[in-house]
Amino acid sequence: MPKALIIYYSRTGNTESMAKAVAEGVKSKGLSTRVKRVDYTTAYDLMSADAIAFGSPCYFGYMAGTMKEFFDRMLQGTILKNLERKPAVAFVSNGERDGGKDALLSIENMMAYFLLQKAADGVISRGKPGSVKIEECKKLGVALAQAVKQRKVKGHKK
Amino acid sequence: MPKALIIYYSRTGNTESMAKAVAEGVKSKGLSTRVKRVDYTTAYDLMSADAIAFGSPCYFGYMAGTMKEFFDRMLQGTILKNLERKPAVAFVSNGERDGGKDALLSIENMMAYFLLQKAADGVISRGKPGSVKIEECKKLGVALAQAVKQRKVKGHKK
Amino acid sequence: MPKALIIYYSRTGNTESMAKAVAEGVKSKGLSTRVKRVDYTTAYDLMSADAIAFGSPCYFGYMAGTMKEFFDRMLQGTILKNLERKPAVAFVSNGERDGGKDALLSIENMMAYFLLQKAADGVISRGKPGSVKIEECKKLGVALAQAVKQRKVKGHKK
Amino acid sequence: MPKALIIYYSRTGNTESMAKAVAEGVKSKGLSTRVKRVDYTTAYDLMSADAIAFGSPCYFGYMAGTMKEFFDRMLQGTILKNLERKPAVAFVSNGERDGGKDALLSIENMMAYFLLQKAADGVISRGKPGSVKIEECKKLGVALAQAVKQRKVKGHKK
Repeated sequence: MPKALIIYYSRTGNTESMAKAVAEGVKSKGLSTRVKRVDYTTAYDLMSADAIAFGSPCYFGYMAGTMKEFFDRMLQGTILKNLERKPAVAFVSNGERDGGKDALLSIENMMAYFLLQKAADGVISRGKPGSVKIEECKKLGVALAQAVKQRKVKGHKK
Repeated sequence: MPKALIIYYSRTGNTESMAKAVAEGVKSKGLSTRVKRVDYTTAYDLMSADAIAFGSPCYFGYMAGTMKEFFDRMLQGTILKNLERKPAVAFVSNGERDGGKDALLSIENMMAYFLLQKAADGVISRGKPGSVKIEECKKLGVALAQAVKQRKVKGHKK
Repeated sequence: MPKALIIYYSRTGNTESMAKAVAEGVKSKGLSTRVKRVDYTTAYDLMSADAIAFGSPCYFGYMAGTMKEFFDRMLQGTILKNLERKPAVAFVSNGERDGGKDALLSIENMMAYFLLQKAADGVISRGKPGSVKIEECKKLGVALAQAVKQRKVKGHKK
Repeated sequence: MPKALIIYYSRTGNTESMAKAVAEGVKSKGLSTRVKRVDYTTAYDLMSADAIAFGSPCYFGYMAGTMKEFFDRMLQGTILKNLERKPAVAFVSNGERDGGKDALLSIENMMAYFLLQKAADGVISRGKPGSVKIEECKKLGVALAQAVKQRKVKGHKK
C-alpha cells in the first residue's frame, strides 16, 4: 500500500488542524498515512514515502524557519534522487488577511528544487481553519492520493 | 562601552571566517564584540547589544533555515521595541557563482521587519572568503561600529 | 498580576494536554498564564515570568533533547541571576510502564542548576493522561501559583 | 570502501578539533571519512555509515541538547535495525576540571540503546585539546577503523 507523509510545523494548532484534514483526505483513498511534526521527521521518513504534503504557518512572508531548516538538512544527492517525481502538495496557515501566498510559494518552490511533482494547488487558511478550509484540505489530500495512484498505473517503480 | 553582537550560521566554516573578520572590524573601533553561532544566541543577547551583524550561507536563494528560525522565535513585541533603530548589517556566503544576493536580501528584509537600521551594504562571498572579501568584512564591521557611535552622539539612549 | 509560563515539548499531544491542565490550575488562582512550546520560547519569556513549569516526554530516560537544548541555550549569567529563587515545577509524559522518574529528575536537576525553587513534586503520566492525571496537573498548577503568592507576601521583588 | 561518519556539536571549536583528529585517525587506516555537525546530519547519513563517532561538549553533566535531540529524532525501528552492531565511539569536551565522564556516559549509553558496538573507550578533553588529547583522538579514530575491518573479516554484511 502506498504511503503518504504529512509534514507540518505549528504553534497555535491551526496548521496542525489542516494537516489532519489533509491526512483524512489521503486516507479516504486508501493510502497509508502518517502525520508528523517537522521537528522529528527524518530523511528515512521522506525517502520511504510515496507522496508528501508540507504544511507551515506563514512568518515574514515565508515558510517557518523550522520547515526551511528541514529542507536545508535534506539537501543531499541521494535524497534528491529518491524524491524525483514523487507527488507533493503544500498548505499554509496565515495570521493576516491577505498574506500566505508568498509562504505557499516558498514551499512550492522548494518542492520544485527537490524535484517533487506538484499534485494540486495549495491551500491557504487565514487563522483558525473553518469548515470550508478543512474541506479544501481534505480535497488536497484526495488529489495527492490520486496522483500517487496515477503514477503507479503509469508504471513508475515504487 | 557599546556592545556589538555578530550572529552567524555556518557549516563549512566560510560564514564563520566572515563573522570573525566583521568582529575584527568592529573591535578596531573600540567596541566590545561577541561572535556567536545562532543556535545558542538568546533574546537577551539580542536585546543587550547596541549593534548586530547577521551572517548566513545561502541555501535555496534564502538565508539558512536555522537563521530564519531565530528570527521567527524573536518575533515578540517587547523584543521589537527594544531593537528599534539599532544599527545592523548582513553578510552571506554562497557556494554558487552568481547567487547570494537573494539570501542577503532575505536577511536585510528581516532587519527591516525588526526595525533595525541598515548601517552599510552587505557583503557576499563566493565560497571560501579570500583576502579581498575578508577586508570587505572588516570594513563592514567598521561601518557598523561607526553607526553605533553616531547614534550615541545624536543622543539616543543606550 | 504575576505571570506564569508553562514551557513544554510534545509530539503526540500527551505532554501538551498536561501543560494545558497545569495552566488551568495556575489560572484558577488568578495568575496570568502563558503556555508555550519550547521551540519558540525565548530568554525574554523566561526572565519576565514569575513562575515556570516545564513539561517533556521521557526519551531514553531523560527529558526531550529539544528541552535540554533550551536549557543549554539559557546558560548565561544574567539569565541565571534573574531566575534565582523563582518557583518552578516539572511534569513528564512517558510511553512506558515504569519509566518517567529519571526524566522528571533530569528536569528537576536542571531547575536546581538554574537556581529555581521547586514548588511541588512533579507529575508523571503514562501515555495519554486520564482524568486523574489531569487533576494532578491542575493541582500542580495551583501549587505553583500559591508559591508565587507566598513569595510576593514575603516581600521578594518580582 | 567502508565509510566512517564523525558527528559532533561544538560552540567554541574544542569538540570540533577533537572531531577532526578522530577523522584523521580513521582516514589513516584507509576508510572514507565524513565529519559533520549534528545539526544537519540525516538518518540517511547514519544508515549509510559503517562506523560512527559522536562528539559533544558536556553541559550540565550530559551531552549537548542538540545531540540528544538528534538521537530522539533517530528513534525509529528501521534506523535501529540498520545500526545494529555497527562500531561506534564517543568523545567529549568539557569546560570544567573533573567533569565530562557523565556526558561521555550519556553518549555511550545512547550508543547501547541504538545497538551500536562500542569499539574503544571514549576520550575526554578539558577545554582546548592539547597535543596529547589530539593524539588520543587520533587513536580513537584508528580503533574505530580497525573495528570496521575486523567486522568485515568476520563476514558481516555491509
